[in-house]
Amino acid sequence: MKFKAEIEILPKKGLLDPQGKAVLHSMPRIGADNVTEVSVGRFITLEIDAENASKAEETAELASKKLLANLIMESYNIRISEL
Amino acid sequence: MKFKAEIEILPKKGLLDPQGKAVLHSMPRIGADNVTEVSVGRFITLEIDAENASKAEETAELASKKLLANLIMESYNIRISEL
Repeated sequence: MKFKAEIEILPKKGLLDPQGKAVLHSMPRIGADNVTEVSVGRFITLEIDAENASKAEETAELASKKLLANLIMESYNIRISEL
Repeated sequence: MKFKAEIEILPKKGLLDPQGKAVLHSMPRIGADNVTEVSVGRFITLEIDAENASKAEETAELASKKLLANLIMESYNIRISEL
C-alpha cells in the first residue's frame, strides 16, 4: 500500500527564529499588522510503500529523526494518510 | 480573539524540487528505501488578532499571497484554529 506522510518542522519555542522575526516585521508593510507572532519552519511530504499505516509512520519517524529535523533546535509533527 | 494559522507551502507538481530530490536520494542511506517521492517546502505559523475565524483566514491569505508564497512556483494551504 501507498501512504503519504506530511511532516511539519518548526524551531522549538524560545529558540532563535530569525526568519520568523523578519517575516513578522514585514507584516505591517502589507497591511497585516494584526499578526503578532510568526514561526518559520519546513514542510516535507513523503510517499511511502508500506504494509500498513503504522509501518509508514515508522518510516516517517526514521526519516524525521535521522535526516529531516535537527532535534536539538527543532520539533516535528507527522500526519499519515492513505494514497 | 486570537487565532493560529498554519500555512503549508509546497513546490507545484511538475516543477523542479532539487531539495526534494536530494532528500529522496539520501533515504536508502538511512534505511528508508521504501520512500518513493519527497517534496520539500515551508511551514509557517502565524498568531493573528481577529474578530472571528473568517477575518483571521483573510489575514493569512493576504500574508500567503503577498509575502510567504511564490504563487508562480508554489501552492499553499491554510488551516485556522482558535488559540
